[in-house]
Amino acid sequence: MVTEERIIEALAGVMDPELHRTLVELGMVRNVRIQEGKVAFTLALTIPECPLKDQLVAEAKAAVLSLDGVEEVAIDLTEMTDEEKRRIGLGGAGQPGVAERFNRVRHVVAVMSGKGGVGKSLVTALLAVAFRQDGQRVGVLDADVTGPSIPKIFGLHGVPPMGPLGILPAETRMGIKIMSINLLLPSEDEAVIWRGPLISSVIKQFWGDVVWGDLDWLVVDLPPGTSDAALTVMQALPLSGVVLVSSPQDLAEMVVRKAAQMAQVMQVPLLGLVENMSYFVCPESGRQYNIFGPSHGEEMAWRLGVPFLGRLPLDPRISELCDAGNVEVYTTEAFTPIVRHLLETASEPRRSPVQPARG
Amino acid sequence: MVTEERIIEALAGVMDPELHRTLVELGMVRNVRIQEGKVAFTLALTIPECPLKDQLVAEAKAAVLSLDGVEEVAIDLTEMTDEEKRRIGLGGAGQPGVAERFNRVRHVVAVMSGKGGVGKSLVTALLAVAFRQDGQRVGVLDADVTGPSIPKIFGLHGVPPMGPLGILPAETRMGIKIMSINLLLPSEDEAVIWRGPLISSVIKQFWGDVVWGDLDWLVVDLPPGTSDAALTVMQALPLSGVVLVSSPQDLAEMVVRKAAQMAQVMQVPLLGLVENMSYFVCPESGRQYNIFGPSHGEEMAWRLGVPFLGRLPLDPRISELCDAGNVEVYTTEAFTPIVRHLLETASEPRRSPVQPARG
Repeated sequence: MVTEERIIEALAGVMDPELHRTLVELGMVRNVRIQEGKVAFTLALTIPECPLKDQLVAEAKAAVLSLDGVEEVAIDLTEMTDEEKRRIGLGGAGQPGVAERFNRVRHVVAVMSGKGGVGKSLVTALLAVAFRQDGQRVGVLDADVTGPSIPKIFGLHGVPPMGPLGILPAETRMGIKIMSINLLLPSEDEAVIWRGPLISSVIKQFWGDVVWGDLDWLVVDLPPGTSDAALTVMQALPLSGVVLVSSPQDLAEMVVRKAAQMAQVMQVPLLGLVENMSYFVCPESGRQYNIFGPSHGEEMAWRLGVPFLGRLPLDPRISELCDAGNVEVYTTEAFTPIVRHLLETASEPRRSPVQPARG
Repeated sequence: MVTEERIIEALAGVMDPELHRTLVELGMVRNVRIQEGKVAFTLALTIPECPLKDQLVAEAKAAVLSLDGVEEVAIDLTEMTDEEKRRIGLGGAGQPGVAERFNRVRHVVAVMSGKGGVGKSLVTALLAVAFRQDGQRVGVLDADVTGPSIPKIFGLHGVPPMGPLGILPAETRMGIKIMSINLLLPSEDEAVIWRGPLISSVIKQFWGDVVWGDLDWLVVDLPPGTSDAALTVMQALPLSGVVLVSSPQDLAEMVVRKAAQMAQVMQVPLLGLVENMSYFVCPESGRQYNIFGPSHGEEMAWRLGVPFLGRLPLDPRISELCDAGNVEVYTTEAFTPIVRHLLETASEPRRSPVQPARG
């Protein structure tokens, strides 16, 4: 027989996709009515224009329909009162930092080099893709506010919608969540002429106000330099560590050593070093050319006392795929050992980014 | 006959190399004594440890020795009193901004790209070298405070000395004057972990407190990005204009357009666009490979409405020479038309960087 108790039990298996708690626990289920095989109830939403509303309603419907004897389910929607929202920890919904309380991010890794143009964004993207291929839940936070490349190389456009908890990240074809200033600008080549404090504040928002949800890995793409963006990421985000990117030039090496020194000063672990643009393979002769000089990535990693994670070639196909927004199509074995190393060694975050909503 | 009047007349032809005024005008010549063919006098210096002292004394000696009847010249040195220094406009010697009052810089050009690693420092260096080969007096201000490359590619080390008016720039073999944070750090790979306001203040010091002297061209190497460093250079320096550097990647182009937009917003003229890393010539087959994709520098320049100044290849020899501090040895025809264009079109500075010391 269909009883209110059995219906509530079924709905206790449905999670709110943003709040990570069941509909029953959140007090969303109200006014359950049963008339023979027909069930009707009310769902009190946190915000009626919640973009995940349809998913929630569909799941609730399916759960109740799965009960023996239920033939029809009708759900009507209402909105929680401010007092009710406060009781479930949403006092400040839409307020800064609310998303952060509900996000669960296990590892935050920053990709850094100090030097520009050595391929930080490429390494960030390939790292995210490799994690994703390994079945991990992955996000990319583009902390390069004045020179953001991440949306372009993943082929993403359009303004991310606002959810009840905060900004919803864009999602790539593979399901990697992305947040970047370039998704929020009216056009992708619009300049962001901001001094340091604004740069810092947008990076903090990308951490605290974006609904990352449950992630195994959040990869942060840092801009060149050791100034505001890097300082803010190292101070305000619970980094597991930093992956350094270098190129064979001595010049790059000198600047990368500055980045390594910064991480050490800020007490952020160095997870390893990737060398990009190591060599160019001439498609005709098959010969390798060290366009930026002979590789000394291994020696450099040794001198910094960090694992050498591997090298990537100068490959015209990479540029082509990145320019076309198809970085996810690029296949390379180079990242398999890198990802394995990170999965094995990554410690839990230095401090928990997740704070319980209450008690 | 040797008279005090003739001696003063001779010394009125000797310029103080920093203050750009004659020894007589500055009141440096004192206590002239004549005994037959022997002449002795006192020179009152602004600061006794002035590094240009020997040059000054030698020129003064030569000037007096050139007089008929003078066989021997003895010069003793003393220091001006504070009151005397104040009278010649040196009230604040060693104070911020004093150097600026005595510098005469005709054109200030910033090299910018927005994007990192496209070769701003290389273009800055080759531009400076090409100007120098044309007989111009040239300086390079390295405004990339967190990732400075200029001293390394010119092979410069060591802390620049302090003169009476301010910091004396380092000088390359060709006589290009250089100022960079990396000359002031205890070691070249020391990180500069500073937020924006400190970055801005050091750039302003490199303009106002460095004894650039008489320059035809000061080339400013900007870091990637459109934040503090670029803002400060565009707001605080009397720029003649900006030279944009791009690479063939669409990705780079997008970010370079942001830089161009910033210059337009800040009302700084765009002098032209240089494309770097355009192609790689395989040393065996002689074939050109577009490693970063096909060149569209000309089209991009056209869309921005600026002259296309030329393209530079991806040349392993460049990396090698830069890593060895020998950028001045690199020979390329590529910069001849660029320099010619800049010499022809560069307007006078938007506002005069030189303010008279008094009345």
